[in-house]
Amino acid sequence: MHRPKIAVVPFPEPGIVAAVERGGGDAAEAVVADGLVWTNPADPGGLKETLATSPARWVQLPFAGIEEFVAAGVLDADRTWTCTKGIYGYSCAEHAVALMLAAARDLKYHAGATNWRGGGLGAPERLLRGAQVLILGAGGIGRELVGLLEPFGVRTVIVSRSGRTVEGAGSAHAVGDLDRLLPEADYVVLALALTPETRRIIDHRRLALMRPTAWLVNVARGGHVDTDALVSALRGGGIGGAALDVTDPEPLPDGHPLWSIGNALITSHVANTWDMALPELRAMVERNVAAFAGGGRLEGLVDVELGY
Amino acid sequence: MHRPKIAVVPFPEPGIVAAVERGGGDAAEAVVADGLVWTNPADPGGLKETLATSPARWVQLPFAGIEEFVAAGVLDADRTWTCTKGIYGYSCAEHAVALMLAAARDLKYHAGATNWRGGGLGAPERLLRGAQVLILGAGGIGRELVGLLEPFGVRTVIVSRSGRTVEGAGSAHAVGDLDRLLPEADYVVLALALTPETRRIIDHRRLALMRPTAWLVNVARGGHVDTDALVSALRGGGIGGAALDVTDPEPLPDGHPLWSIGNALITSHVANTWDMALPELRAMVERNVAAFAGGGRLEGLVDVELGY
Repeated sequence: MHRPKIAVVPFPEPGIVAAVERGGGDAAEAVVADGLVWTNPADPGGLKETLATSPARWVQLPFAGIEEFVAAGVLDADRTWTCTKGIYGYSCAEHAVALMLAAARDLKYHAGATNWRGGGLGAPERLLRGAQVLILGAGGIGRELVGLLEPFGVRTVIVSRSGRTVEGAGSAHAVGDLDRLLPEADYVVLALALTPETRRIIDHRRLALMRPTAWLVNVARGGHVDTDALVSALRGGGIGGAALDVTDPEPLPDGHPLWSIGNALITSHVANTWDMALPELRAMVERNVAAFAGGGRLEGLVDVELGY
Repeated sequence: MHRPKIAVVPFPEPGIVAAVERGGGDAAEAVVADGLVWTNPADPGGLKETLATSPARWVQLPFAGIEEFVAAGVLDADRTWTCTKGIYGYSCAEHAVALMLAAARDLKYHAGATNWRGGGLGAPERLLRGAQVLILGAGGIGRELVGLLEPFGVRTVIVSRSGRTVEGAGSAHAVGDLDRLLPEADYVVLALALTPETRRIIDHRRLALMRPTAWLVNVARGGHVDTDALVSALRGGGIGGAALDVTDPEPLPDGHPLWSIGNALITSHVANTWDMALPELRAMVERNVAAFAGGGRLEGLVDVELGY
């Protein structure tokens, strides 16, 4: 195709529009567009409405976690769908390391302290070095996380649907091994897509398999965790703590017990802020517009059946 | 010497006594000892008193920051002195990374939050990736820190007395370049020994050279920083924040302004707790007792003149 018409909607973010043009496309209205970049991660209904009158054969979604769009029935098999899976892996992995170190070094306590405690014998701070880190998910976050953790001298264990290997990981396993691996982990990091199979993958039973000193770290989706079971495990000393960038419900309502539990550290979905994401999204739009114009293979293709 | 007599005083920590024996020494009273391992990092007066009646020719100090012992005039040129410089570098470097990531990801705010903020455009959380990290000190902490930061994609700049290179660092400079380098740094990490030359190396003038977004991270000694000047810089927006494992005064007294400044994160000297330190100290004692017995070179030799 010579220069495809690409709609950037509902917000025509200037950097994305410029990326469309650098990729060889022309900005256009949705009703005449060949392809469409959706710029609101939170409005599946709006996208469905827009597509009802758009001939776009390709739709680029702005985030990797597209389960709300899947649940709303927006994705159809007649169009090609891409999301940003993989490209935000670094920021989320960096946030996961921040949360793991915050857990190891008891930073929630220190952030709120107003007097000196010191590091004598029996102090609760721990080294991250030497820990066993169980990572659920072999995608962009998992791969980046293994790389970031390499110099910390931890043992990384990957669990994913396919059981595929991640370069540099200590070992890789299919999800059937999860229950056997949970009791060995010092940190359990959730870095997988949310699908019907992975919803509440961390439930009451699996929390009970974790060590009483182990931390749960979630940089994926709140729906992976049974929140009520987590609150019970935290209150009862069943696990060491939880560092959550995502929650269920989300946003976490004012007054929710998780806000006031001492060993729960909540960061309100900031692992990959819009400011961190935009440069990556713009670059991906440019690459995908170029591929779309030239008949090449698009990046971040969604398997409409699997929902991610 | 066949089996040197080694005193482990004032606390005969069992693991250290065992290390003495594994190293080829025999535990002994200080008054008959050839060598002496001092196990209280906070009592230079007690050591001076002990040495008055001890023939020990070698003294092992339990920590790397020995400036209180130097100031108290405990170190004499007639004995050989060793401290733990270098061997605790990893734990302190790991803590420095925890503090830098806590700064980047605004964890002090999140630790105290009781409602959702989100990661929309303009959110304050930042990537550590891409930052310029100025490290003062080319010793054990600096070397380990450069290694830990390698996969984060930061630019590391080392400043030290000698200007010596650290493997993997982006660049290395002598302390004369400090004023020129400070305005370029996103993080200024203190990882050097406290000597008369480095006391208050970060004063009012140098804080004013830092970027208004830059964070000061101190895992060395509180005396490196002019605390009143720091409080002013934090209150006036002169720098982005401070993450301090050490303070001056230390312990930081109840009610001190640093406890209540939003962008000051204080961890009360826990970068290297006794639990983290003991395995390293025991291993070093074993190696040094073996070297002492065999006439080999001791590790961690103190330059009595320089005071570290």
